[in-house]
Amino acid sequence: MADNRIYIFDTTLRDGEQVPGCKLNTEQKVEIARELERLGVDVIEAGFPISSPGDFRSVVEIAKAVNEPVVCGLSRAVAKDIEVAADAVKNAKRPRIHTGIGTSESHIKFKLQTTPEKIIEKAVMAVKHAKRFVEDVEFYAEDAGRTDNEFLARVIEAVVAAGATVLNIPDTTGYCLPEEYGAKIRYLRENVKGIHKAILSTHCHNDLGLATANSIAGAQNGARQIECTINGIGERAGNTSLEEVVMIMKQHQHLNLVNQINTPLLNPISRLVSERMGMPVQPNKAIVGANAFAHSSGIHQDGVIKKRETYEIIDPLEVGVDHSKIVLTARSGRAAIAYRAKNIGHNLTKEELDVVYSGFLEIADRQKEVSDDDLSKLINSKLSSATA
Amino acid sequence: MADNRIYIFDTTLRDGEQVPGCKLNTEQKVEIARELERLGVDVIEAGFPISSPGDFRSVVEIAKAVNEPVVCGLSRAVAKDIEVAADAVKNAKRPRIHTGIGTSESHIKFKLQTTPEKIIEKAVMAVKHAKRFVEDVEFYAEDAGRTDNEFLARVIEAVVAAGATVLNIPDTTGYCLPEEYGAKIRYLRENVKGIHKAILSTHCHNDLGLATANSIAGAQNGARQIECTINGIGERAGNTSLEEVVMIMKQHQHLNLVNQINTPLLNPISRLVSERMGMPVQPNKAIVGANAFAHSSGIHQDGVIKKRETYEIIDPLEVGVDHSKIVLTARSGRAAIAYRAKNIGHNLTKEELDVVYSGFLEIADRQKEVSDDDLSKLINSKLSSATA
Repeated sequence: MADNRIYIFDTTLRDGEQVPGCKLNTEQKVEIARELERLGVDVIEAGFPISSPGDFRSVVEIAKAVNEPVVCGLSRAVAKDIEVAADAVKNAKRPRIHTGIGTSESHIKFKLQTTPEKIIEKAVMAVKHAKRFVEDVEFYAEDAGRTDNEFLARVIEAVVAAGATVLNIPDTTGYCLPEEYGAKIRYLRENVKGIHKAILSTHCHNDLGLATANSIAGAQNGARQIECTINGIGERAGNTSLEEVVMIMKQHQHLNLVNQINTPLLNPISRLVSERMGMPVQPNKAIVGANAFAHSSGIHQDGVIKKRETYEIIDPLEVGVDHSKIVLTARSGRAAIAYRAKNIGHNLTKEELDVVYSGFLEIADRQKEVSDDDLSKLINSKLSSATA
Repeated sequence: MADNRIYIFDTTLRDGEQVPGCKLNTEQKVEIARELERLGVDVIEAGFPISSPGDFRSVVEIAKAVNEPVVCGLSRAVAKDIEVAADAVKNAKRPRIHTGIGTSESHIKFKLQTTPEKIIEKAVMAVKHAKRFVEDVEFYAEDAGRTDNEFLARVIEAVVAAGATVLNIPDTTGYCLPEEYGAKIRYLRENVKGIHKAILSTHCHNDLGLATANSIAGAQNGARQIECTINGIGERAGNTSLEEVVMIMKQHQHLNLVNQINTPLLNPISRLVSERMGMPVQPNKAIVGANAFAHSSGIHQDGVIKKRETYEIIDPLEVGVDHSKIVLTARSGRAAIAYRAKNIGHNLTKEELDVVYSGFLEIADRQKEVSDDDLSKLINSKLSSATA
C-alpha cells in the first residue's frame, strides 16, 4: 500500500452509538454497516460485544453482512472482554480486536487505581491474549492526549513487541491543540522501537471543537488511520466527523493524503444515520448540514450566481447534494431576485427589478424567507400596477 | 491594554442572522445584544444597515441599547453603504464602521470584474470615507483566505495608511488549514508597514470543520480580535463558535491569550439564540450541545463517578451547565447503576447489584434509555423476588 494512504476507521456504530438517545437495534446497525461498506470505509468498529447481549448480536451480524471492511470489536484489557469480542467477530472476513487501557496519570491513579508498571503489564497481556484469536490487534492507550509522551512511548513499544498491528492514540477528553497532538504522533514515530511494523491511529474528541484539526495534524505527522464517525457523533461533544477529514484531504491535495471514500454518498449516509438514531444534524454543520450549500446574503448570492467558486470551495455534487441553494431573505440583493425570478419565468429588466426590489424588502422584513410563490405574486402585482 | 488581550467580536446578529431561517425582528435583536453585553463581548456587529429598512432599524436600536461594547455596522466599499452604516451607528457610545472588498483573484475577476489596482483604490476610498463619520474603521479583505499574501499585504498597507484601525482577514470560504491561516497572519505582521498601529482580526468559516482551529492559529500568530458567533451560526456551514475559542483560551493557559467573557453565561445565551432563531444546536455540539456533559458508556461513567476530570476537561459549572449527566443505556456498567440507584435511595450491595444488572441489560437492549422510574421498578421486583 502506498505510504500516503489513510485508512478510514468508522466508529459510528460503537463510539457514536454509545450516546444518550442513539441506541440502534441489530437490524438498523446492519443496514448502516452495509452503507458504510458502500461508502468505502476501511474499518467498521461494530460495537463493544461484552457490554450487552444485544450489542454482541449486532457485532456478529455485521461480521457476516460485510465483505470488504475490517470488522472490529472493542474490549477492555480484560481476558473475558477479549474472548467475547473474539467470539463476536469470528465470522468476519477480516476480523480485528481493539483492546486497551488508560495511560494518563488521571486514569492510572483515579480510575484504575494502579501503577504505571502494572499498566504496561496489563496492556501486553491483553494484546497477547487477543493475538490468540486474531492476527489483527489494535491497541488503544486511553487518554493518550493527556499522557506524558515518554511513558506513552514505553507502553506503545511494549505492545508493538507483543504483536499489536494498529496503535490508537486517543485524545479521549478532546483536550489537545493541533500542534500538541501532531507532536505526540511525531514523538512516537521517532522514539518507539519497531513502530514501522504497525499503523498509528488518531481518535480525537471534539470537546473544544478541534477534533478535525487534531486528526489532520496527526496524519500530517505520520498517523495512517483516522477514527471518525458520520456526523461527528460520539461521547459528549462527539468524535471527529468522517465527512470533514475526508473532504479536507480532497480539497488540500498538497497534503498528499489519500483515502478511498466515495464522497457522493456522504450526504445520503449522513441522513440515514441521523434518521435511524433520531440525532439531528444542525443546519450549519460542515458538508452535511442543510445550509452547508445555501446562500441568503446579497453579497454572497451575487458572487455565487456569477461563479459558484467565489463562495463555495466544494462542488455540492461531490458530496451528494444536488445544487447550491439561493434563498431569498431580507439580506438578499437584486442579483438573487433576478435569478430566482428568471427561474420562475420572469426575465426582469433593470427598471422592473428596481420596482420589484423595494416591494420585496417590505415582505422580507416581515418574514424569514420569501418563497417562489410570494415572489411570483409580488412580480405580478408590481408590474401590472406599474404598467397600468 | 495588555498585548495578550483578545477582543471578542460577535457577529451573531450579522453573519449569523443572514442565514436561511434565522431572521430576527428588531426587538429580538436588541434582546440578544443586551445578553451579549452581559456575556462580555467587546464588539457587537449589529447588522448590515443598507440591506433592508428593518436591518437599519435594528442597528439603530442596538446602538442605543448597549453601553460597553463597540457597535459595528457592515458595509460594502460603496459610499452609499458607508453613509447608511454611519447613520445607523451614530447613537452608539462606541461606533464602528466595517467596510471592505474582495481581494482574491476569484473575487476580483469574476465577482467584481475589475483589476487589482482598482481594488486598492476602492479600499482606500472606502476607509477614508468611513473615517469622515467615525474614528474606528474596520476593513475586511473578503476571501483573504484565498488571496495571494503579497497582494493582500499591499491592500492592508494601503488601508492602514488611510486610517483603518482594525484589519479583518476573513477565510470567507472556509478553505484554509490552520498552519496556512496562521502563516498568513504572521506574514502580514512581518511585512506590512505600520501594522502595529492597527489590530489584526480573524473571521473564519467552518466549511471544512476548521474555523475554530484557524481562529486560534491566527491569535497564536498575532491576531488580537476573533470574529465569531454564538453556536457557530453563519453563512453555509457557519462561522467560528464563540464558545469554543473562549474555552480553548481558558483551558490552555500556556497560550497566554486572555478575554473577558463571562463563561457561565455561555449555555444560557446559546439557548436564547437557538430559540429566537429557531436554529437547533445538535446534541453533540462542543460546550453547548445537550450531550456535551453527558456520559452513557460504562467505561466513561465509571471514570466520571470516581473523578469527574478523568473524562471531562471542563467543569460544567464553568459554562453554565448544572452538572454532568450519567445516562443509563445498554452501554452502561455496574458503577453507573449503583450511582443512579443510590440517587433514588437504594444502596445496593455487590450481590444485589449483580442481580439488578442482568435485569437492567434486558431492559436496556430494548429501549434507548433507562429512567429512574424503570430502575426503581426493576430494583423492587428483582430484590423482592430474590429475598422472597
